[in-house]
Amino acid sequence: MKRAVCDRTFPGVFMHVLMAAGISVRCDLELFQSSRRCKDAVELQAMDVSQRATEDAIELACRLIARAGVNKNGELMHEGAPLSSERVRGEIDMFFARCGFENPRSIVAGGAQGADCHHDGDGVLRTGELIMVDIFPKSKSSGYWGDCTRTVVHGKVLAQATRMHAAVVQAKAAAVRAAHVGASGSDVHGETLRVIHEHGFSSGTPPVDAPDSWCAMVHGTGHGLGLDVHEPPLVDRGGLTLVAGDVITIEPGLYCKAVGGVRVEDAYVIEATGARRLGRGLPEGLDWS
Amino acid sequence: MKRAVCDRTFPGVFMHVLMAAGISVRCDLELFQSSRRCKDAVELQAMDVSQRATEDAIELACRLIARAGVNKNGELMHEGAPLSSERVRGEIDMFFARCGFENPRSIVAGGAQGADCHHDGDGVLRTGELIMVDIFPKSKSSGYWGDCTRTVVHGKVLAQATRMHAAVVQAKAAAVRAAHVGASGSDVHGETLRVIHEHGFSSGTPPVDAPDSWCAMVHGTGHGLGLDVHEPPLVDRGGLTLVAGDVITIEPGLYCKAVGGVRVEDAYVIEATGARRLGRGLPEGLDWS
Repeated sequence: MKRAVCDRTFPGVFMHVLMAAGISVRCDLELFQSSRRCKDAVELQAMDVSQRATEDAIELACRLIARAGVNKNGELMHEGAPLSSERVRGEIDMFFARCGFENPRSIVAGGAQGADCHHDGDGVLRTGELIMVDIFPKSKSSGYWGDCTRTVVHGKVLAQATRMHAAVVQAKAAAVRAAHVGASGSDVHGETLRVIHEHGFSSGTPPVDAPDSWCAMVHGTGHGLGLDVHEPPLVDRGGLTLVAGDVITIEPGLYCKAVGGVRVEDAYVIEATGARRLGRGLPEGLDWS
Repeated sequence: MKRAVCDRTFPGVFMHVLMAAGISVRCDLELFQSSRRCKDAVELQAMDVSQRATEDAIELACRLIARAGVNKNGELMHEGAPLSSERVRGEIDMFFARCGFENPRSIVAGGAQGADCHHDGDGVLRTGELIMVDIFPKSKSSGYWGDCTRTVVHGKVLAQATRMHAAVVQAKAAAVRAAHVGASGSDVHGETLRVIHEHGFSSGTPPVDAPDSWCAMVHGTGHGLGLDVHEPPLVDRGGLTLVAGDVITIEPGLYCKAVGGVRVEDAYVIEATGARRLGRGLPEGLDWS
């Protein structure tokens, strides 16, 4: 019997057709993973370009929100019309169309929408609410993705939002310090959770009867980034040991129905001595005015 | 042993993980195909919207090319700078960013590049050459793709280009007449080839020693269109029998290294009595000035 080995990206229908033709197919989960994970200098240069463009779009979106006007109902106003998630997303799309990136999705989620870490966001944005902006485009020329998140508040910041934000930023710093060759994704996530818990917040899926004030980190610390927006290694419980050239996101977040969501994210390349941030670096604060 | 059935879009890595867990997985090529293929009224309305936006972008791009200036070297000029495939593609991208469509790729291929039906096109466009514009974006709101192609010439059209274009347009009309419930994709493709051959052109892969003047239709007549840009049924040799609600493209083309490529494409829904074009309909000619 003829035999074939496929990698983890191989479509199931191709496996089916090969097997129907009498060829035995084995999926090797590790095949091509090492060369995909260990980014070389050329790849890292391309990823830096993608990350800088992503940062530019974050800055554009956060400033647009922070500098918007506000009407008597607390709704943000821009150029005479209410400023919605959709309008901000449209500006992000225009930016990437101009600079040659695909941008299939982006998150601009305010208030309670931001508390659901899967909500892309819609409707008019409001002053005083947490607004999460998560942008992840792909360069059409290089094929590499960028990924960056900031959280912005227009106007006055609630005390609880400030506390959540401080915990997230400190958790991110701790995770970055823990990320180096030989540490595991699980180790890095453990550091994130340690800081989150130290600040009195929870982690994991909230209980079904959790009150709206329940505030928790409900996802992993990050994921690999490269020719896919999500690729190995996962930076979460059970995450693999990091190798030189891994590019990962570090993106702790806290989510609370009563307050909203806070997430801060950058991309890092793993080196022997630690994690080096890609891109030029953006402020991590809530004030973009 | 537990058993599972998956459809043709199921990732191979999921099949692997299920099988490793002792669950036998069978890929059913027909699973979900009937509901994907038979578009209902709501889906057809969404596809009409996608196709109209695609047509608007085709019109924008073809007019930009046809109305460009020209320098003493025969290069197209727009707003004081040479007009390249990349610049036209940038205008298409901006258009779709404004109206909420993803546009991962588009083809703007002039001269010899257009003779390679897989070349996206790059570099400065020239007067007198065949320029193929193939646009296929996805609506971010509905998820449905549009797909439309026109070929445009700036300035004087070569006699051979006119002959190729006439054959393609007549082949397209014949294919449309042949497309109805109960006809097969293979039947429709046969009609395309009949007209192509009647006009004295070839079909199939050119022989390795073919001269640059070799002119042939080198691909199938079309493909299904919907939530994927390419989905069943294939309109080609061996193509399935068409059913009511199938949306297919009909896109004959002729390719000649010495002259360039001509392709004209629209999308059609299959009905009992024939094929109904989606969108508002665009002129099929080479002159967009």
